[in-house]
Amino acid sequence: MKTHRFTATQWHNVLGTLPAALTVASGDIVITETIDAHGFDKDGVQRAPEPNPMNGPIFVTGAEPGDALKIEILRMTPIRATGWTRAALAGNVVDPEFVRGLPPRDKANWRIDRQGLTATLEPAVPGLEDFVLPLEPMIGCFGVAPAGGQAFSTATSAENGGNMDYRGFGPGATVWFPVAVPGALFFVGDCHATQGDGEIVGTGIETCFEVEIRLTVEKGRSLVWPRGESADDIYSIGNARPLDQALQHATTDMFNWLTSDYGLSPKAASHLMGQVVRYDVGNVYDPAYTMVCRIAKKWLPKR
Amino acid sequence: MKTHRFTATQWHNVLGTLPAALTVASGDIVITETIDAHGFDKDGVQRAPEPNPMNGPIFVTGAEPGDALKIEILRMTPIRATGWTRAALAGNVVDPEFVRGLPPRDKANWRIDRQGLTATLEPAVPGLEDFVLPLEPMIGCFGVAPAGGQAFSTATSAENGGNMDYRGFGPGATVWFPVAVPGALFFVGDCHATQGDGEIVGTGIETCFEVEIRLTVEKGRSLVWPRGESADDIYSIGNARPLDQALQHATTDMFNWLTSDYGLSPKAASHLMGQVVRYDVGNVYDPAYTMVCRIAKKWLPKR
Amino acid sequence: MKTHRFTATQWHNVLGTLPAALTVASGDIVITETIDAHGFDKDGVQRAPEPNPMNGPIFVTGAEPGDALKIEILRMTPIRATGWTRAALAGNVVDPEFVRGLPPRDKANWRIDRQGLTATLEPAVPGLEDFVLPLEPMIGCFGVAPAGGQAFSTATSAENGGNMDYRGFGPGATVWFPVAVPGALFFVGDCHATQGDGEIVGTGIETCFEVEIRLTVEKGRSLVWPRGESADDIYSIGNARPLDQALQHATTDMFNWLTSDYGLSPKAASHLMGQVVRYDVGNVYDPAYTMVCRIAKKWLPKR
Amino acid sequence: MKTHRFTATQWHNVLGTLPAALTVASGDIVITETIDAHGFDKDGVQRAPEPNPMNGPIFVTGAEPGDALKIEILRMTPIRATGWTRAALAGNVVDPEFVRGLPPRDKANWRIDRQGLTATLEPAVPGLEDFVLPLEPMIGCFGVAPAGGQAFSTATSAENGGNMDYRGFGPGATVWFPVAVPGALFFVGDCHATQGDGEIVGTGIETCFEVEIRLTVEKGRSLVWPRGESADDIYSIGNARPLDQALQHATTDMFNWLTSDYGLSPKAASHLMGQVVRYDVGNVYDPAYTMVCRIAKKWLPKR
Repeated sequence: MKTHRFTATQWHNVLGTLPAALTVASGDIVITETIDAHGFDKDGVQRAPEPNPMNGPIFVTGAEPGDALKIEILRMTPIRATGWTRAALAGNVVDPEFVRGLPPRDKANWRIDRQGLTATLEPAVPGLEDFVLPLEPMIGCFGVAPAGGQAFSTATSAENGGNMDYRGFGPGATVWFPVAVPGALFFVGDCHATQGDGEIVGTGIETCFEVEIRLTVEKGRSLVWPRGESADDIYSIGNARPLDQALQHATTDMFNWLTSDYGLSPKAASHLMGQVVRYDVGNVYDPAYTMVCRIAKKWLPKR
Repeated sequence: MKTHRFTATQWHNVLGTLPAALTVASGDIVITETIDAHGFDKDGVQRAPEPNPMNGPIFVTGAEPGDALKIEILRMTPIRATGWTRAALAGNVVDPEFVRGLPPRDKANWRIDRQGLTATLEPAVPGLEDFVLPLEPMIGCFGVAPAGGQAFSTATSAENGGNMDYRGFGPGATVWFPVAVPGALFFVGDCHATQGDGEIVGTGIETCFEVEIRLTVEKGRSLVWPRGESADDIYSIGNARPLDQALQHATTDMFNWLTSDYGLSPKAASHLMGQVVRYDVGNVYDPAYTMVCRIAKKWLPKR
Repeated sequence: MKTHRFTATQWHNVLGTLPAALTVASGDIVITETIDAHGFDKDGVQRAPEPNPMNGPIFVTGAEPGDALKIEILRMTPIRATGWTRAALAGNVVDPEFVRGLPPRDKANWRIDRQGLTATLEPAVPGLEDFVLPLEPMIGCFGVAPAGGQAFSTATSAENGGNMDYRGFGPGATVWFPVAVPGALFFVGDCHATQGDGEIVGTGIETCFEVEIRLTVEKGRSLVWPRGESADDIYSIGNARPLDQALQHATTDMFNWLTSDYGLSPKAASHLMGQVVRYDVGNVYDPAYTMVCRIAKKWLPKR
Repeated sequence: MKTHRFTATQWHNVLGTLPAALTVASGDIVITETIDAHGFDKDGVQRAPEPNPMNGPIFVTGAEPGDALKIEILRMTPIRATGWTRAALAGNVVDPEFVRGLPPRDKANWRIDRQGLTATLEPAVPGLEDFVLPLEPMIGCFGVAPAGGQAFSTATSAENGGNMDYRGFGPGATVWFPVAVPGALFFVGDCHATQGDGEIVGTGIETCFEVEIRLTVEKGRSLVWPRGESADDIYSIGNARPLDQALQHATTDMFNWLTSDYGLSPKAASHLMGQVVRYDVGNVYDPAYTMVCRIAKKWLPKR
């Protein structure tokens, strides 16, 4: 097991089958600095165009189609004293006629206190003078190359991951992606200092992080959608529009997970999910929305 | 302030402008026993047809269109030793072609331990032998008569409340409904011993409760949608299909709440919601889905 | 068979179980004058509030739950020299952020030439000086009382019909509604001089008509949704949001129609529908959208 | 102006920036034989894997980002005596619980009479013995490389075209695609002998055609979505899920077309569209649905 310090020198606006920027072994750790959603680095220099320029891809030796790539998010350290957001709700999250009255989608600036681990609007916005947010870092966009020569904009997400903007993807989370090409080709970027459910202003607090992750190949998992795990929960991810379809994907995948890996019958899986399932809204802003279907580990049968 | 013990002798399958079964003053408490979603009472006798027969309506003196009816859920005591659920995920919550493989939507029985406050499948389902659920009682269907002579089936929900099946509607919750007719005409029933998010098998654990609520008129609140409050949060409710539209309604209503009652500018409300909002899925089974838009009270400006 | 000249003296803004304004026998003809969507009559006098005040209900002797009420639209004669529309696309039919740039939803006036059977904007709108529309009259809102004591606003539609705003509902059309209460209780109003697909400005050309219809009870048809017939086609109707669900309802109903009434196997019905089905968008503006699933009669097996 | 006979030797399952298989000048004609959706050629030999293998890409000299590529479909000649379809409605076009009862999605065979220009099920399906369909050839999947290095599966569609499965895309149609890369990189394949609206069994009659098209660059058109023209109509295309969003895209694009190219004010465009617009459902089966927004040319202002 090796730790790689990976300094990106180019960035990508698609997740696709591109030349590897780094090759690692299964189980290796990568430490890398990400730039923000508009391509600005920790020094405020634009290094790449929007949307969501990605570090990578990272080729993981031994990863083959049908495997899963496990990503453990070990650490996210903020490396810039500023972040930005949009200053208005997105048009698609309010009633259509209500859009006429929304404020303009200006950029707003935040000061990030890297010692205190907080974020505050700068200048302050009247009425929110006391609004000091604890940092809850998360990766907005990450995933692997999709199957069959496809390449998807980092604005959106699909079976291969991508711009899911789920606030659960922070330090401590483990995420599995379905490997579709040799080496998996992992991409990462677009980190947020914090974000509400749904990313309903179209942004979290967009800034730069040093991210530390471990990449491990799990052979033959045959995933369809990304899956994740936190201290308390396992969860499946659906990416699609409308939200109803994202929920259908995530629910179907959790059902398959419980019946195949946990040995539950379809009836038992239905009972379990019916009475204890939890849903989290990842994003309702990007071209594909993200819905998370969550089960507390305490309810899972022993494997 | 008076406490009424209200024994229903007839039940309704619509929320509409019907003759009052009880008249109370603003601030009064009502204690009443509900029957289950299929109309069976605590003795297992069917007293009314499905769906979701309601106790009521309760006329609250002084309530006029434009007011809000505040319902405080003070207590829910289980009064039957059995409950039931459906044994399969609903077709609309999984990928369409996956429906072919779902188990039949049989009824399953649960034993409710009223001392231990738990529920267990009876007979046990293989693989779930240790599945003992703590009771988390909630009201599946409650609300007031809608405007303009409308009457809605208790299978669905709308601006007036109804069959929202949100597991947050348990003891300790306060809910406000927009009054549309004189006296508000409040209905209640369809209580669940517990339920997962989304009510994705089409039921919670359906049983009978003794419910204790306080009904209070708040003059001139001019609500559009139901709103609620828990110990930690305020929340707005949107009822519609698809889930996207339910979310739009709830988000719009929260925005209006923050700008009108909490004095935030549209820009400040956007910033607050964008970074700290939480969404809960009420139900994704009924004709209208329910989405809840939640803000922790700690983030609210002092009024 | 009798012809009734029915002069409404009150109007309703819901379709529900209300006292009959007229009783007719199966097969009778009714001639009645409708008022416009905002309740203005042929003389420009407001007789009832919006939305879509209805003439009726008409009790049809012998109609019982489980029957169908067949409505033949025999004639629609314009009886006012003016109509009105909205002057902007509705917010829900364009991309959400695009709503900010839409014109205000002002009322626009049209001159209706009852001899020439045309409609023209008055005053003329620059760029549309030559825009002379032939009248294509249609009934915007009609239907029967829904089941179980429900009552639905005339703003929306459901299994019982209502505000479907489908431009196919003009002279020559035959429409069947599922009878849910004794006498069917038929309502009619909200006629349009013409309308595009989808009613995407939120109105057709709203005006008053003398409508001549024949009402016939067909015993035991057991419909779920409205169905219709034109010279060339049969069609099923789905009313719901989103459009996807309206389409699912209409498609399911057509499949059931072909397999039950036309004796096709599920496989044969699939083949027929797959290669020759047509869809019409009724409305995409009202709370429930309307999708029409159409099959040309020439493709139907002989019964 | 030159006519190219283009024989594909490899096929692609994505629309992306791939090496050109043919280079033509603006205004040139290309004649090419397509293979079917599962990759079988006119001799029944599988030449490429599913889904929808494409001929191309064709590089059109002079095409640059911001231009439009105009495709005139001049001729489609059937070149195989057989076609195939699926024998059951797709799960997503019926009510979710109804999916349980659908027939299996078997492949069915059709005989194509290339003289009589008809298609018939072979063997005949009971109840459809007289079901003889006139050929109405159409291109299921065609389009250009998308922007920014993206590559999309031929199973779906987007701003760049793709698998739209709209039955209007037959001989006589003209279609414009937004050019996103130098040379446009045009792809074509997946032709159908005929198809109902929505492609609701998941296929048209899938077969092979000799297609004759003219490719012309129109400089600086700056399209967002594909647009088309038939003898009587102009139309805009929206590709997305749900159908509501596809309709929003198409409607917004038509509004932009009328206001920018035809000089109508937003108010005039609203009036025109509101009263004369027509919608066609392209497909409601593929990952992205297709909605067509159509205006008869007779209503357009003189340019």
